[in-house]
Amino acid sequence: MQLERPTLLLNEAICRRNIQRMVAKTARLGLQFRPHFKTHQSRTIGTWFREAGVKAITVSSVEMGLYFAAAGWQAITLAFPTYPAQMPLINRLAASCQLRLVAESVAELTHLEKRLQHPVELMIKVDVGGQRTGIAPDNTSLLLHLAKQLDRSSKLTFNGFLAHAGHTYRCRTAEQVRSIHEQVILKVGGLRQTFDPSYPGLIYSLGDSPSASLAENFEGIDELRPGVFVFFDWMQLGIGACSYEDMALCMAAPVVALHPDRNEVVIHGGAIHFSKETWTESSGDTHYGPVVLLDDAFQPLQLLEGTFLKKVSQEHGILRTTTETMQRFAPGQWIGVLPVHACLTANLIGSYQTLSGEKIDHFNRQAFI
Amino acid sequence: MQLERPTLLLNEAICRRNIQRMVAKTARLGLQFRPHFKTHQSRTIGTWFREAGVKAITVSSVEMGLYFAAAGWQAITLAFPTYPAQMPLINRLAASCQLRLVAESVAELTHLEKRLQHPVELMIKVDVGGQRTGIAPDNTSLLLHLAKQLDRSSKLTFNGFLAHAGHTYRCRTAEQVRSIHEQVILKVGGLRQTFDPSYPGLIYSLGDSPSASLAENFEGIDELRPGVFVFFDWMQLGIGACSYEDMALCMAAPVVALHPDRNEVVIHGGAIHFSKETWTESSGDTHYGPVVLLDDAFQPLQLLEGTFLKKVSQEHGILRTTTETMQRFAPGQWIGVLPVHACLTANLIGSYQTLSGEKIDHFNRQAFI
Repeated sequence: MQLERPTLLLNEAICRRNIQRMVAKTARLGLQFRPHFKTHQSRTIGTWFREAGVKAITVSSVEMGLYFAAAGWQAITLAFPTYPAQMPLINRLAASCQLRLVAESVAELTHLEKRLQHPVELMIKVDVGGQRTGIAPDNTSLLLHLAKQLDRSSKLTFNGFLAHAGHTYRCRTAEQVRSIHEQVILKVGGLRQTFDPSYPGLIYSLGDSPSASLAENFEGIDELRPGVFVFFDWMQLGIGACSYEDMALCMAAPVVALHPDRNEVVIHGGAIHFSKETWTESSGDTHYGPVVLLDDAFQPLQLLEGTFLKKVSQEHGILRTTTETMQRFAPGQWIGVLPVHACLTANLIGSYQTLSGEKIDHFNRQAFI
Repeated sequence: MQLERPTLLLNEAICRRNIQRMVAKTARLGLQFRPHFKTHQSRTIGTWFREAGVKAITVSSVEMGLYFAAAGWQAITLAFPTYPAQMPLINRLAASCQLRLVAESVAELTHLEKRLQHPVELMIKVDVGGQRTGIAPDNTSLLLHLAKQLDRSSKLTFNGFLAHAGHTYRCRTAEQVRSIHEQVILKVGGLRQTFDPSYPGLIYSLGDSPSASLAENFEGIDELRPGVFVFFDWMQLGIGACSYEDMALCMAAPVVALHPDRNEVVIHGGAIHFSKETWTESSGDTHYGPVVLLDDAFQPLQLLEGTFLKKVSQEHGILRTTTETMQRFAPGQWIGVLPVHACLTANLIGSYQTLSGEKIDHFNRQAFI
């Protein structure tokens, strides 16, 4: 295998194992599994999910939905608010799959009712603490008002509540994640108490990878939609949601200059490759990713202690290391950097290469538009 | 004009004015102008430079170089270190234009000499304080050693020194930029004293937009290679390198949810649109971009005081505003966010739309690879 430029290496075996584990866990717990495909955005990786028995998916944009509908996915949740300017695209998507949308306001339901050309399922978005979008689960009057609006709809089938506990991303231990998750379970429980009598059979759907990976109690939950578990990344490791062996992605980047006077190594690999997502270690050290040595087949070897991608400009990355480790770098050598946030790195690189040299596709937003 | 999704709006008149100003300034100062095209990465915008008389350009990757060579650019500097794995691509580029490369080590010159199939120009990279790549200008022994290695080369023509004062990006006033620039001028002056006697006629090339925009003294400098001045952005405004009226880019993004209880507005526009580049105001407020109202033709109106893009996830953005300004937002409305770092935002969106609705191309790395 020969590389020509910074390349996002994908360990297919690890990725498939991550998929199978989550399939097995949701099956064991009796949960529907509707994985979020925004992390990998790949038709090929989609087939790995299909081979593991997955039939329904989640996407974060209507364009991504069209990409996966064209690849044969029949049940798609668009887990992002709709807005008037996207109605032509949403109608295209609704024509090509069983589409499930989310909404959190009277205005959204009204514009959907007016402009949808095909029936869709609708989930009300609830905010279980992430404070991004959604209605507070105890805002019963608004929730019931929307439910009644949905009862009168000819195009929207009310089929449940969608929540994303995004605040687990701020955790630094598995215990913290589980503690947040227990609060989320209580909130969803309250919601069920309100709705179960009049609306039996609704689906209560939960999203984030940390809870999906770490929690065991999913009482009152019907569906899981995690995304990043497919690859995991340094952030998920820092949160406690995975182990080092679960990380399926590694960026291979060439060393282009050495500056031993300041223990710095310049690589080809910058903000347009990694993104500017940072992670702060418990030591207080903030960086763009930890560094690993690669063997001749680009397989990651051990983590280089105290060595991080510390600065990125557009194409340049600067690794800072120790005097001792500095000697392990040579010009032209390929080193590995583990992405802090897999979704953003994959989105920037726009393709993967397996360790056997196979190129794996990624949705190309730019070509779509 | 109708928009369907977050769209990077380009004000062509402002952009052309920025180009013309820099062309006029370099002409007035007797400097060669070799603008960095990594900011816009657009063939169309390239033609605006050509119409203003520009004949030579700078790029940050060999793929970008091939893209512009195919568009007819004949003189191209690749301002990034070369490495062995890229030699096939570099040879392709060297076959299609008058290529100028940079290097900072014996090893680089050796591998270039061995594997280049076409003659190229070569500049030695010097570090004038940015501490990214390059040799200290007072490291005369290494500089002379490389110069002598170039003297013996059959493929590499030594034609000067390339510097990038990247540390001006850490400035917060025009005075600070000018002060750094004066030190850079002194360093380049020292370099000239060493090399002028034996190597007359070399080109001394300087890069950054803040200095190029703000300084007037370019004694000892022959060439300027600024990039971001073509659009400017919120960071350049914060550095003092431009005024509000010079900013040519604005992201139009739709409002998708309102949360007046916490003075937050959710937009479609997240990390995959803006990047995660932040800017910290003098007040200490860190954000992903300031917010402007747009008129019906998507023309930016005034800045909304105290209103910033404060959080981004993959597709979501959260604006934080004041209780008073909160009332100016409505669902479905298009608002504007000024990019903190134009290069990264343009790279992510991968196209521009002018205010008259024309779509402007951007190099698509993903399709190229």
